[in-house]
Amino acid sequence: MSVLIPRPAPHGGRLEERVVHDRELGKKLAKGCAASFDIRATLDENGVPVRNVYREIMSICYGFFSPVEGSMKKAEVERILKERRLLNEWVFPYPLVFDITEEELKDLGVTVGDRLLLRLKGKPFAILDIDEIWRIDDPEDLAHRTFGTPEANPEVVNEPFNAKMPGWVIYKNLSPVVLAGKYRIINEPTFLPPFDKFWYPPLKSRAEYDRRGWRTVINHQTRNVPHVGHEFLMKDAAYTGDLEPCHGIQVNAIIGVKRPGDYPDEAIIEGHAAVNEGGYIKPERHIVTFTLWDMRYGNPLESMLHGIIRQNMGCTHHMFGRDHAAVGEYYDMYATQTLWSKGIPSYGFPDAITEVPYGLHIRPQNMREFWYCPVCNEIAYSECCGHTKEKQKFSGSFVRGMVAEGLFPPKVIFRPEVYKVIVKWWKHFDYPFCNPKYVKEKEQRLEVDLPDMDI
Amino acid sequence: MSVLIPRPAPHGGRLEERVVHDRELGKKLAKGCAASFDIRATLDENGVPVRNVYREIMSICYGFFSPVEGSMKKAEVERILKERRLLNEWVFPYPLVFDITEEELKDLGVTVGDRLLLRLKGKPFAILDIDEIWRIDDPEDLAHRTFGTPEANPEVVNEPFNAKMPGWVIYKNLSPVVLAGKYRIINEPTFLPPFDKFWYPPLKSRAEYDRRGWRTVINHQTRNVPHVGHEFLMKDAAYTGDLEPCHGIQVNAIIGVKRPGDYPDEAIIEGHAAVNEGGYIKPERHIVTFTLWDMRYGNPLESMLHGIIRQNMGCTHHMFGRDHAAVGEYYDMYATQTLWSKGIPSYGFPDAITEVPYGLHIRPQNMREFWYCPVCNEIAYSECCGHTKEKQKFSGSFVRGMVAEGLFPPKVIFRPEVYKVIVKWWKHFDYPFCNPKYVKEKEQRLEVDLPDMDI
Repeated sequence: MSVLIPRPAPHGGRLEERVVHDRELGKKLAKGCAASFDIRATLDENGVPVRNVYREIMSICYGFFSPVEGSMKKAEVERILKERRLLNEWVFPYPLVFDITEEELKDLGVTVGDRLLLRLKGKPFAILDIDEIWRIDDPEDLAHRTFGTPEANPEVVNEPFNAKMPGWVIYKNLSPVVLAGKYRIINEPTFLPPFDKFWYPPLKSRAEYDRRGWRTVINHQTRNVPHVGHEFLMKDAAYTGDLEPCHGIQVNAIIGVKRPGDYPDEAIIEGHAAVNEGGYIKPERHIVTFTLWDMRYGNPLESMLHGIIRQNMGCTHHMFGRDHAAVGEYYDMYATQTLWSKGIPSYGFPDAITEVPYGLHIRPQNMREFWYCPVCNEIAYSECCGHTKEKQKFSGSFVRGMVAEGLFPPKVIFRPEVYKVIVKWWKHFDYPFCNPKYVKEKEQRLEVDLPDMDI
Repeated sequence: MSVLIPRPAPHGGRLEERVVHDRELGKKLAKGCAASFDIRATLDENGVPVRNVYREIMSICYGFFSPVEGSMKKAEVERILKERRLLNEWVFPYPLVFDITEEELKDLGVTVGDRLLLRLKGKPFAILDIDEIWRIDDPEDLAHRTFGTPEANPEVVNEPFNAKMPGWVIYKNLSPVVLAGKYRIINEPTFLPPFDKFWYPPLKSRAEYDRRGWRTVINHQTRNVPHVGHEFLMKDAAYTGDLEPCHGIQVNAIIGVKRPGDYPDEAIIEGHAAVNEGGYIKPERHIVTFTLWDMRYGNPLESMLHGIIRQNMGCTHHMFGRDHAAVGEYYDMYATQTLWSKGIPSYGFPDAITEVPYGLHIRPQNMREFWYCPVCNEIAYSECCGHTKEKQKFSGSFVRGMVAEGLFPPKVIFRPEVYKVIVKWWKHFDYPFCNPKYVKEKEQRLEVDLPDMDI
């Protein structure tokens, strides 16, 4: 019997790395393109940006989504919707496509076999080798099938998805023509500060954990500035491991399109860094990273993608709390934990996602709730603390409300170092949370700049 | 891949249960005895009790020490001293023998093949079927070989063992004649309060964990009234598990001969119960149990026995801290963790004790230190908290000193409910810690009474 938990291989057996580092080769590939397309945001009915495909291209080409190689063919999307598996058998939750309008297709004039140059912020960025061109006949149907329905997925879906669910809105607003094929980045973007310091694509994160001697690493998913409850979730979940607690705690922020009321991405990522800079989790055991992705909020489905990303990054464990990557009441509160503990047959998994063939190899740490307990005098865990009468719960929404009112939160809610980060970006953006102006400007600015590349 | 950690089978494959529940059969077996012997304490050179073999008989017959069946033959003791294995291959750390003087042997007049009746507190208690009679030629040599030496065990032994080491004193003061053979309890003792409430021999504990739905259970070793640092060790180590934190936390107190300065056993066991009665770890997740054993303080060797006991009791995990079951500076501070993480070749284990053939199947949770951190404002873990300048350490010895001075300890050190238990037994015994009077009286009182049994 070995008690040691091995670092899992990348999902699909090996890491995708679809980035051309040789600039001359990049130029040559760009020159061979039949046409060129300026990447644009996906907009909702009101013209608000809800997604930018550049983030998918980045995450695919840097290996976060291994073994996905590009924009999916129709048969692959159909298999995902039915079985949540790629054509190569490996589990995967969501369709990922490069979608354009009929007018755009006409203007481009490309056909199967052509290579398309994709420009970002006006610069050459990536290429797409078109293997298939297919149509999304009914994007609303695609949106429904992507997330499910209470009838089809009674184990975990409570309410029909609708226009208040950001992931559903993304699929609903896809353009009808899909150019399917593999991506390659031919002109590496550079990250804007503060993101540049936190960029650890899988090859780099795995090397970093070797360098640090981290045999076991647990991931913390975030899209929040961490309050003390988040810090305790991180610290306490990390006591799992094999013969000792996990060596490392990886924070992986999902950075992408924002909704009004979210914390700005800059505050999220620097807020997490403040946790280790302040010594609450020492830097030797803590690393802050991010992945570019416009969250789909698919709770168990999202957790599957999160597992794939973090397994690819070299984590052995992933903590999952209540309402993981969820919005509203669409899903059962513990739907993600159900996927990881016993499976969700209606999504194609009669057993836990770690136990099915071609499944995941990162291990879940399914956590319940934390609250402040004045009797224990600490942030207590619901499965430990017996003071259910005295407990004081504070949700992220409650904390956001307090911040919005301009109240300086007590230390038991925010570490002062973390709160300073909120204030810093509050001053920078004039408001502590994303407003429509931030959302719009961010989708023009994005997280990157691109070097010039003459072709 | 299955991430689920199975409850390990008992050590040696099955539980020993050597207790005759049928009183008529018990009487019949007692009547067939060739002679009768009144169990007495082992005394040191000053006449102070240092061990009572009745505790070994209890732990063997109720299955805590499975697969050990009785007092060991010479060949088995020799194999243990060389390889730390029983003759049936299973790992085991210590010689366990029924020892008497030459005079006692003469008085008894027994020979190999005889059945000996063992009396406790004047009542029939157990029988010993004598398979072999052998001599301990040099008890000091036995004591040295039992624990090792800096020369023979350079990986973990720093200083030669001597008369300040209680385990060494036990072996040094054994009587020279060993009656080897299997025990059976023929008249079940009843536990004195407060022990009666906490008696969970392996068959009962395993059934209890089934009843509670505890698939994963982590053990906490204790011979202390728990201060808040112990409580955090328990709570935090228990976040390990498989797909979620351990379902149950088993406290297993080693109850036996006391040293002056120890907390009374009554305070230890009720102090742990106060942790769940006070709701700091809710009773649904916490159980207090004990095992009768005169601690040998053999650090890694002791941890091996602790692993055997708790595996037999049905635990999946065992937490090990610094200086596990140690006294003085004889052993390396992390010798136990070495045994469980990579093995100690000089004791016969070139690999971790869970990885060797016929080894253990309970899993270690090797923990570092806890301290109070005024910046984090909590009992912090050394591998997490970066405030090494601000930290405030409090050892068990420091806490004992404060209690001895009559200072009411702050809540950050003792939960009030736990401290009340100390005070309760302090009033009962006139002193918060064991004094020579307590030690002597306890070894007459023991932890049990026996029913009358006419034979």
